Amino acid sequence: MIYLDNAATSFPKPTEVLNAVNKSFILYGANPGRSGHNLSINTAMEVYSTREKLNSLFDGYGSEFVSFTQNCSYALNMAIKGVLKKGDHVIISSLEHNSVLRPVFKMTSRGEITSSVFVVTHDTEETLNNLKNEIRENTKLIIVTAVSNVFGDILPLREIAEIAKESNILFFVDGAQGAGLIPIKMKKIGINCLCIPGHKGLLAPMGIGAILHDGCIEETIIEGGTGSESFNYLQPVGFPDKLESGTLNVPAICGLKKGVEIVLNYGVENIFKEETALMKFMFNELSNMRKVILYRSEYDEKMKAPLIAFNIKGFHSEEVSAYLNENSVAVRGGYHCSPLAHKTYGTEDVGAVRISPSRFTTKKDVNYVLNLLQKFAKNKNM
Amino acid sequence: MIYLDNAATSFPKPTEVLNAVNKSFILYGANPGRSGHNLSINTAMEVYSTREKLNSLFDGYGSEFVSFTQNCSYALNMAIKGVLKKGDHVIISSLEHNSVLRPVFKMTSRGEITSSVFVVTHDTEETLNNLKNEIRENTKLIIVTAVSNVFGDILPLREIAEIAKESNILFFVDGAQGAGLIPIKMKKIGINCLCIPGHKGLLAPMGIGAILHDGCIEETIIEGGTGSESFNYLQPVGFPDKLESGTLNVPAICGLKKGVEIVLNYGVENIFKEETALMKFMFNELSNMRKVILYRSEYDEKMKAPLIAFNIKGFHSEEVSAYLNENSVAVRGGYHCSPLAHKTYGTEDVGAVRISPSRFTTKKDVNYVLNLLQKFAKNKNM
Repeated sequence: MIYLDNAATSFPKPTEVLNAVNKSFILYGANPGRSGHNLSINTAMEVYSTREKLNSLFDGYGSEFVSFTQNCSYALNMAIKGVLKKGDHVIISSLEHNSVLRPVFKMTSRGEITSSVFVVTHDTEETLNNLKNEIRENTKLIIVTAVSNVFGDILPLREIAEIAKESNILFFVDGAQGAGLIPIKMKKIGINCLCIPGHKGLLAPMGIGAILHDGCIEETIIEGGTGSESFNYLQPVGFPDKLESGTLNVPAICGLKKGVEIVLNYGVENIFKEETALMKFMFNELSNMRKVILYRSEYDEKMKAPLIAFNIKGFHSEEVSAYLNENSVAVRGGYHCSPLAHKTYGTEDVGAVRISPSRFTTKKDVNYVLNLLQKFAKNKNM
Repeated sequence: MIYLDNAATSFPKPTEVLNAVNKSFILYGANPGRSGHNLSINTAMEVYSTREKLNSLFDGYGSEFVSFTQNCSYALNMAIKGVLKKGDHVIISSLEHNSVLRPVFKMTSRGEITSSVFVVTHDTEETLNNLKNEIRENTKLIIVTAVSNVFGDILPLREIAEIAKESNILFFVDGAQGAGLIPIKMKKIGINCLCIPGHKGLLAPMGIGAILHDGCIEETIIEGGTGSESFNYLQPVGFPDKLESGTLNVPAICGLKKGVEIVLNYGVENIFKEETALMKFMFNELSNMRKVILYRSEYDEKMKAPLIAFNIKGFHSEEVSAYLNENSVAVRGGYHCSPLAHKTYGTEDVGAVRISPSRFTTKKDVNYVLNLLQKFAKNKNM
């Protein structure tokens, strides 16, 4: 099987990551922060060193401001509901995933907050003007994805951060697709909160994510045992505990530590460069196929992460992805939990086929898929 | 090392469970419910069959009413905040963990709800009367732990369920310590919602829990991508998706499936019987040690799960647990995220040493610990 669905979850995981997970069942098998025995303390130290790695990779505000979550969606809910109060206004981009859209839309539909969507185009100036036009007196937060999960657009984080800072607005980033693929430097850029999954670009098993922040998260949505301040009937106010109730996913955290090490050693820039070379080649080949729609005139790697969304004229994206699956190629077709993105690109009717590579993807894989797509278009013509 | 901290997390995990986790990285490595390719579909089927196993073990209301969470605390937050509305009254027991106490106390302290605590004693009739005395016109929910995480008390779930039913009150159970150790039959007993961890009695890796319910969970606290109803700006209302946003912890779910199979095959009753025999032996030996406080006059296995909380007169529980740790025995001392339980038993000053065995614990282990404790008491005497 050729697996090109890495934007859903990266597969396979590096052997080093799997080894780290396996080792954790022996060396870090106790509940961290709960007991005082060696196995528990060793586990807590391993968990802490994973916080340090993440803090380093993302230029965060300190390891205590890294809390682990089940996934990026949980982190985003904690972030959004952690700062938005009654009467606040929030601005999101037109490429947001349901993990941002649904919590925001729920709060909006209940009249708790107001919200606006600014349209992202291929013209950065236009995009930033669209954003500026939505800022109001009571705008508390701007939240955008680093990379569109469907179309791969890289959002101008630095410029958005500047706009947010000028107006004293919090700036949060959904790193679901960006983490491990494009450099995201929180302090340098001016990001107050970054939410990430472990299981995509950071190569960890499914079931782990994190919220990194500068201390701005006031409110909690989950409270419970933290192993700290046992006699406090209220959730502790100190981080990371405040955002970590109940037992952590230690095996995945140990895998994540190794995944982050791999990314740090290899370099995010190099990962981006390699995958971009492959996707650029594929994009150019696809653009020569008459019936293929690519949703952009050229491959501008400054504005595009290495994944390709396309359709074949006359077919629903799911027909194409099913055909590829029959031929042992795993991609995602249909809709991608991002209704705003499909509206922005006008693909509400057919969805999109998404090709998302990893460091394990080869040019041979890409050529195999290109051949299949050529056959598909040809056969369906007859 | 002799590991007797299984109430925090069971260790080691059975080889079959670890094999299932490892197999999942190959066979079930895609994101379930997100894509239409074989790897994703196979993963979704494996996840679904884990729902079926849990539904079967706990006599639930159907596999679609089993949603996976990061841990039991998350499940409890989803349950409590999923039904309590402004003006409601909730009753909790005096043995609740912070994962129940903190969400309830937060809502109470903000004036959103009112709440009462009923005291659990060693006299079931008295306990039930205490509960009945707290019922009010606006009582919406009774929530109790199946087993005290500190002192091992088994709560009279059947009788409480009857009382709840008579008054048309929802009855939720925190299965953190009970799941896999005592039989919990939801339909048979009349439990509307059961929250469980995977990593304790069900032998799965850390990072997985579940909420089982009868459809009563109205409100969500987390919204996001569910892989379903992509174009719905609001969280889908159908279960299990409504309570499952973002990527699931697939490796741990695969491990959990195997863990539940082991428990089902071996029989919860047999696990209880074996561990009870060990703990009863230990209890009786400890009760012969002059300085040991055991917090109950006799070992009544109908009212007590196989774990022992004790102290040694004149010492803080953490001194005892540290001594055991120095001698390669892992137990939990201090406080156990259960301030109400410590108050109920009057151990706010010293905490408690907790011995919690697993199916891997032997009589030899128990004797080794008994010897150490005898030495501790003797040496400290001199």
